[in-house]
Amino acid sequence: MLAAFEGGRQAMTDQHKNPKSDIEIAQAAKMKRIAEVAKDSLGIDADKLEPYGHYKAKLSLDYIKTLEKKPDGKLILVTAMTPTPAGEGKTTTTVGLGDGLNRIGKKAIICLREPSLGPCFGMKGGAAGGGYAQVVPMTDINLHFTGDFHAIGVANNLLAALVDNHIYWGNQLGLDERRIIWRRVVDMNDRALRNIVNSLGGIADGFPREDHFDITVASEVMAIFCLATDIDDLKRRLGNIIVGYTREKKPVFAKDLDAHGAMTVLLKDAFQPNLVQTLENNPAFIHGGPFANIAHGCNSVLATKTALKLADYVVTEAGFGADLGAEKFLDIKCRKAGLKPEIAVVVATIRALKMHGGVAKEDLGKENVKAVIDGAENLSRHVENLKKFGLLVIVAINKFSADTKEEVDQVRQICAELGVDAIESDHWGNGGAGAKDLAKAVVKKIDQNGSNYAPLYNDALPLWDKVRTVAQTLYGAQGIIADKKVRDQFKELQDGGFGHYPVCIAKTQYSFSTDPNLKGAPSNHVVPIREVRISGGAEFVVAVCGNIMTMPGLPRIPAANSIDVNEAGEIVGLF
Amino acid sequence: MLAAFEGGRQAMTDQHKNPKSDIEIAQAAKMKRIAEVAKDSLGIDADKLEPYGHYKAKLSLDYIKTLEKKPDGKLILVTAMTPTPAGEGKTTTTVGLGDGLNRIGKKAIICLREPSLGPCFGMKGGAAGGGYAQVVPMTDINLHFTGDFHAIGVANNLLAALVDNHIYWGNQLGLDERRIIWRRVVDMNDRALRNIVNSLGGIADGFPREDHFDITVASEVMAIFCLATDIDDLKRRLGNIIVGYTREKKPVFAKDLDAHGAMTVLLKDAFQPNLVQTLENNPAFIHGGPFANIAHGCNSVLATKTALKLADYVVTEAGFGADLGAEKFLDIKCRKAGLKPEIAVVVATIRALKMHGGVAKEDLGKENVKAVIDGAENLSRHVENLKKFGLLVIVAINKFSADTKEEVDQVRQICAELGVDAIESDHWGNGGAGAKDLAKAVVKKIDQNGSNYAPLYNDALPLWDKVRTVAQTLYGAQGIIADKKVRDQFKELQDGGFGHYPVCIAKTQYSFSTDPNLKGAPSNHVVPIREVRISGGAEFVVAVCGNIMTMPGLPRIPAANSIDVNEAGEIVGLF
Repeated sequence: MLAAFEGGRQAMTDQHKNPKSDIEIAQAAKMKRIAEVAKDSLGIDADKLEPYGHYKAKLSLDYIKTLEKKPDGKLILVTAMTPTPAGEGKTTTTVGLGDGLNRIGKKAIICLREPSLGPCFGMKGGAAGGGYAQVVPMTDINLHFTGDFHAIGVANNLLAALVDNHIYWGNQLGLDERRIIWRRVVDMNDRALRNIVNSLGGIADGFPREDHFDITVASEVMAIFCLATDIDDLKRRLGNIIVGYTREKKPVFAKDLDAHGAMTVLLKDAFQPNLVQTLENNPAFIHGGPFANIAHGCNSVLATKTALKLADYVVTEAGFGADLGAEKFLDIKCRKAGLKPEIAVVVATIRALKMHGGVAKEDLGKENVKAVIDGAENLSRHVENLKKFGLLVIVAINKFSADTKEEVDQVRQICAELGVDAIESDHWGNGGAGAKDLAKAVVKKIDQNGSNYAPLYNDALPLWDKVRTVAQTLYGAQGIIADKKVRDQFKELQDGGFGHYPVCIAKTQYSFSTDPNLKGAPSNHVVPIREVRISGGAEFVVAVCGNIMTMPGLPRIPAANSIDVNEAGEIVGLF
Repeated sequence: MLAAFEGGRQAMTDQHKNPKSDIEIAQAAKMKRIAEVAKDSLGIDADKLEPYGHYKAKLSLDYIKTLEKKPDGKLILVTAMTPTPAGEGKTTTTVGLGDGLNRIGKKAIICLREPSLGPCFGMKGGAAGGGYAQVVPMTDINLHFTGDFHAIGVANNLLAALVDNHIYWGNQLGLDERRIIWRRVVDMNDRALRNIVNSLGGIADGFPREDHFDITVASEVMAIFCLATDIDDLKRRLGNIIVGYTREKKPVFAKDLDAHGAMTVLLKDAFQPNLVQTLENNPAFIHGGPFANIAHGCNSVLATKTALKLADYVVTEAGFGADLGAEKFLDIKCRKAGLKPEIAVVVATIRALKMHGGVAKEDLGKENVKAVIDGAENLSRHVENLKKFGLLVIVAINKFSADTKEEVDQVRQICAELGVDAIESDHWGNGGAGAKDLAKAVVKKIDQNGSNYAPLYNDALPLWDKVRTVAQTLYGAQGIIADKKVRDQFKELQDGGFGHYPVCIAKTQYSFSTDPNLKGAPSNHVVPIREVRISGGAEFVVAVCGNIMTMPGLPRIPAANSIDVNEAGEIVGLF
């Protein structure tokens, strides 16, 4: 049930024989000073930057405002087929494609999500790309980075403290202690905090009630942070967070507690996009990192919009497979932010195709053309889905050393029949040089055809029908079902003024269906909706279909045990 | 019971008539770029700094190592009489004295603690000085600053997660769930988290047990962070944290959980001292901020030692009154770090003296020489105490507009009889220029006399006798008492190999006694010890005498309600 975390953290050290580890490659990188990257690649003067050390910087909001009138570059989405334990390399491909575009003389910026700190101490593996397609400084990015997630955590927890403090001092707003939905957060995999009873101890300690902690990235503050267009919009959205309900089921908002001003103050610096670089010294914005299940799973709108003003091509990624990440990118982020993506690059690997074709992980090293063909059903479904949004599509085959010519040719053939190109890309092994073919193909495709992007459904469609549309059109489902209680919740939200919100479907990332074991492209399944939640500040309605874990645990032997500082003062064991 | 927080947060806006607010003064400050401050004042090149924006920087540990052979400057401690609600202005005086020393041509650096973020949202008031004696950028310093406390919080919570995770996966070390002493932390005033039951929910969520959250500054990680001399010492101390006991009462250490390496990685960047500036562009290190009750209440050893290599005079402060802060500075920090302080500046105000003389807060505006004389008993006791450590002593009268000549003359007279100078200082109203007399007096005193600093007791004295020595010698107590259970704990620690540690006495800061209502200089009282705790990584034994609050709550109308970002994007309502 580790639904929350993604393939990026599964180190792909077996991509090639005897490779250097990611951290070795990253630590050997010849980084430029970030002020130099900003000046050379983007023409930004050092005084528009807030440096965080010499290799990370935030871009000032005042400077960003001056870009308003500039034309936008082209937006490229990197997404993937349904993830498998073999790893697809979505972040790696995003970085590689960005470097590839720069290699062929295009001005390109990549936009990524910030990794969550907590999971670093659980499973081994970072989330800043891999091989020769990484963003650096990678240990910083994987640890505290510029402190954004800490700011988000504090803002979240200030609101939580204000909720219980309000009740303590007389509960003028009449919050029902049983109906408080706002949770506390820590940026740590800490299962002991999933379910607690708080406010124990006596009169001076409050009114005991059931409470829960999520990991910081699951906070609605994170989703808001990533969707807000400016500080005013950030504050407005924070004020609209629903913290709980009265006994009469009337929502109580963060603004009712006068919390949103102070929360905005806590987020003000963090809200400035972070600039770092790839191993090839090309600019990368890494900003925000919401979950791709209970939230929309993309980096901040502000970073993406800023990048579009500064570059001709912006390469960004969305979480999980295209059914989750790309759908939310297109139906939530792009719809709300007025973004017009041109093309979707669907990352596939021969290994993942074989796994969808029924091959066990230990047998992936052997050629199996039949399994590739069978597994390609999954890829085909994603490609067809993305076309339904009016996007151009290219398949990127993220190269592994065990791939055979027959297997790769088979994928090309299948893609040709779908009318899309499948391009082999070796950015993991060769950086931007390995991704030049992919970059050229992407540019050619964009130049030939205009984008026809449109979201899958209209704002006006009722919430229930929005979920059904996604399930039927993209998941191949027969329909959706829910208990009366859940259907009543849909009705309440529809009648309560939230009917025009997009829906955010939280389901397993391992299948088009809600059963993680159903690989390939299942059809005629039914999607059961267990629960509906309203994110009043993020402005979407979450339909929960399955067990969604918002507080992971640590494994029996956590990565923390082997993380250390060596005699030379270097960090070891992190990836 | 807000024992944890200090006078600094009570904004002294009534120090003079119609003053500008602290935040107005701070926002109007003409700051220099921090690289300029480092270069001009300290001769440090920009590449030895890790910038955090343009006005904050961390000093690289490699650079600090190169200073080892340089001679040390003179160390000046700013402490205070017993705090009252009237406010004494210890931080303000530290900043003012530093600026005053620079004004009279001396090379001086100030060393302060970092403020805790959580309390900003409770009571109004920051902790970065006041009036024209402040450190800037003050909103940054009072909020996230350079993220040190966030790093300390995560390191603390990683260890907590590893403890419960260890139990979850089979509890090989045999930790007794009832004897876990390691608590979780948040940097927030959140009374709901003081006492909780965690790990509820079922088999996958762990073994339910009673648990507690402290505010981040109360973490032993904070105390360790401030006492460690380098990264190796930091890691060693983190490994020696006792997280709990087995059923057989055998201690279980952080190193038994392999936690200390990863905790060190989390603290590595934070461990570099932070450089900022005063309103007069003089250098200030602000680094670390442990409680002054359950911990030792001073900024980091690393910052103080680094400052001593870079300046001729280093002005630092210790928490609360001299009975708590100065005693711990001298008996814990200086003893352990091999520091040799020259002089203690005891901050007094006419207002505070009157309150100790029995005047109510609302009557402080009226002249009352008799009350000043009565209240001076408190000041005299502190002065005599500090002499017992072999220190030179000067009294600084932090000037308020309502002070009369007769009142001030009376204090001078009393101090003269004690053999110490009492110098009026108007740094609040006039910055360094207002503190020149104080600066001159301090320099003159240091030049005339050598320091004879020695801690109050020897390492070899048994723990119980150490506490008694402090209580009798400094508090004026008849003796100390404790239940058999507590006396047994003393014996266990003494026999368990911790007998050579210094003691850290946690008691109210409002009286020499354990009764906060006993003003002045009470004698022949008895100090009851309620509890003993061992801080195995910080390497001291805490004797708890009274209710010590390690997780504050928010007031009925929290400051958070009025904190906001205005149309111009400026922070308002913070102080």
